[in-house]
Amino acid sequence: MTPISPLAPQNIPDLPAIDGVRLATAAAGIKYKNRTDVLIALLEPGTSAAGVLTRSKCPSAPVDWCRAKLRSGKARALVVNSGNANAFTGKTGRAATSLTARLAANAVGCGEHDVLLASTGVIGEPLQASKFENVMAELVRNARADMWLDAARAIMTTDTFPKVATAGAKLGKANVTINGIAKGAGMIAPDMATMLAFVFTDAPIAPPALRSLLKTGVEDTFNAVTVDGDTSTSDTLLAFATGAAAARGAPRIVSTGDVRLREFAKAFQSVLASLAEQVARDGEGARKLVEVIVEGAVSKPSARKIARAIANSPLVKTAIAGEDANWGRVVMAVGKAGEPADRDKLAIWFGGIRVAYRGARDPGYDEAAVSAVMKRPEISLKVALGLGKGRDRLLTCDLTKEYVAINGDYRS
Amino acid sequence: MTPISPLAPQNIPDLPAIDGVRLATAAAGIKYKNRTDVLIALLEPGTSAAGVLTRSKCPSAPVDWCRAKLRSGKARALVVNSGNANAFTGKTGRAATSLTARLAANAVGCGEHDVLLASTGVIGEPLQASKFENVMAELVRNARADMWLDAARAIMTTDTFPKVATAGAKLGKANVTINGIAKGAGMIAPDMATMLAFVFTDAPIAPPALRSLLKTGVEDTFNAVTVDGDTSTSDTLLAFATGAAAARGAPRIVSTGDVRLREFAKAFQSVLASLAEQVARDGEGARKLVEVIVEGAVSKPSARKIARAIANSPLVKTAIAGEDANWGRVVMAVGKAGEPADRDKLAIWFGGIRVAYRGARDPGYDEAAVSAVMKRPEISLKVALGLGKGRDRLLTCDLTKEYVAINGDYRS
Repeated sequence: MTPISPLAPQNIPDLPAIDGVRLATAAAGIKYKNRTDVLIALLEPGTSAAGVLTRSKCPSAPVDWCRAKLRSGKARALVVNSGNANAFTGKTGRAATSLTARLAANAVGCGEHDVLLASTGVIGEPLQASKFENVMAELVRNARADMWLDAARAIMTTDTFPKVATAGAKLGKANVTINGIAKGAGMIAPDMATMLAFVFTDAPIAPPALRSLLKTGVEDTFNAVTVDGDTSTSDTLLAFATGAAAARGAPRIVSTGDVRLREFAKAFQSVLASLAEQVARDGEGARKLVEVIVEGAVSKPSARKIARAIANSPLVKTAIAGEDANWGRVVMAVGKAGEPADRDKLAIWFGGIRVAYRGARDPGYDEAAVSAVMKRPEISLKVALGLGKGRDRLLTCDLTKEYVAINGDYRS
Repeated sequence: MTPISPLAPQNIPDLPAIDGVRLATAAAGIKYKNRTDVLIALLEPGTSAAGVLTRSKCPSAPVDWCRAKLRSGKARALVVNSGNANAFTGKTGRAATSLTARLAANAVGCGEHDVLLASTGVIGEPLQASKFENVMAELVRNARADMWLDAARAIMTTDTFPKVATAGAKLGKANVTINGIAKGAGMIAPDMATMLAFVFTDAPIAPPALRSLLKTGVEDTFNAVTVDGDTSTSDTLLAFATGAAAARGAPRIVSTGDVRLREFAKAFQSVLASLAEQVARDGEGARKLVEVIVEGAVSKPSARKIARAIANSPLVKTAIAGEDANWGRVVMAVGKAGEPADRDKLAIWFGGIRVAYRGARDPGYDEAAVSAVMKRPEISLKVALGLGKGRDRLLTCDLTKEYVAINGDYRS
């Protein structure tokens, strides 16, 4: 067993029940022994569904499945398995998604098209979906409202801790809840950043509004996280709104322009942000959480391109692993991004200490102070370009020998 | 001392003299102790010069210098130092280039604008060019025609072996020679791929033709090598043609369209290719040389983008370090490249063995045979997309714990 990331959150929040959502997990024996590897979420009739899926040109079979089924904007069940990504599995893969959906639909008593699917794990191995047959009826029978942490555990692969987040908000006069679970680890890069994340709420939000919330929400959360610049074939973020809070007086929201949605939108965003940050905190082999801030770029997209070049640079990431404020490598990364940058206007900070200014080492550079900052588990790296008002922020982690070991030594 | 890369060429060729070129090296004490760190190449009057320089938006001071001086197409001397890249050094950096050129010009007896410069090493530290003053006169006095290997050694940084290449060709009825030296290691990615490379010939080639040869030549050599996807602020490839072979009857070439140049162009290309390959063989921490071939893409640029996505993927590179033919990660990299790709038409080979075919594992997959191939120090990875005729080839190396150690542990 890999030890828990030193960057794991100190406290795991208790996730409250969400009206209209019930969860169950089981050990179907897909790949792992002695642990759960399948999750079902049962959703009340009328639940809205929306998703953001990987932009990979070689998506997994469940990603193709979700892309097709999400058009209806409705869902009654979500089935997620870990251990096998059902990606690059050809016809067998498509057959496996159909079988899984059929098994779930039969057990739940809904249509196959109302079942959404996600898989994570090995690529290229056939997924033996028939193994779900043994556990499906039991899963549906056992589903409960308080299984959030178990749900987060069942979808882990090389994650070292389960990722959960929760927030509450007022919608009209009703209290509504948003819960999310995610799994991350390696192969994490925009777009999308996460492997799998699922967010649930009892708020009554129509599918187009839910889609819009999600699309806006990922921009500075899941799409602003990178572990290794590698984008998975399986990246899937799904949101479900059961609407059960309508019975407690919550207004039905059909548009994100609705002012009554403001507080909810903020809470929803905070759940996405928390899950995304936890993904960075659990990057494979990560020992340091790194916040990359770029400001003074000619635009936000330009700032993002530069921030990504820094956050994905192996030389920057290994220097941070070595606790060196190697701003020369940051300059290199800024330079290779291909975006407007003027060497002689550049300033660079590590942990709030300015180390480079106007094209050269900061005259007040204090080695000891910078060294102390670099020993911290959380490091902020800021670059000011001095050209415009474009700003962006990304989260990443350092690149350690453990990353190489996790991704290279797994055969031995 | 880092041990020599296991991928180093078995034999280092003897480089013959080139009429019109004399070389000398010295220990100026820029950073290293007990080794040479400055090289001068003296070039006969009339020598043509051409260059390809980094596209970094934050280039080093010597890159700026070369970009300006290369406009004349002429050069009388080249000064290269290792240990300090004179990059991101502001006004001090510009002063250091001027001083270096002035010192060299005085010693050689030419104009400052006839001196080209290159520096490699630490970024952001002021380069103490005054140290060249002590050695410059001696360098010019000692310059000899047979110092090629010494020259290659003087420009090394974390390189584990000196990189030299040579080729001969007939130009008209005269035999002409092309010699090249290079240094590489980390921060190697298109464009350009190399840190520093210098190619010399006695062929009489006018500056526009030399420029054109170089521009065509880098495409499938230096721009087709990547170690870590990081592009240096200092990447410099310079070519010099002294024209001394004209005295032996070689025709003066003014255009690359000249049919008499064909054999020479091929030999010139082979020198670039050899140097570029040696750079990949000496990638930091490299244990395996990896050739990535992409065919069947919609175009050559599309094939290159896909090849780069594969060659720069940390997950592909760590799998190769772990001797695993993890074609799932190759699929991931193809998918993230964003170029046209059809999962169900994809085929993937490791070392000539087809492991994936038509969107799934190859039915004839033989684990033992593939394992044997993956143990080799040189691995060919081929992807066929089945869409068109676009083809490309890149060289890279694996990503090992040694890479992380070299780039992260240097402070301890």
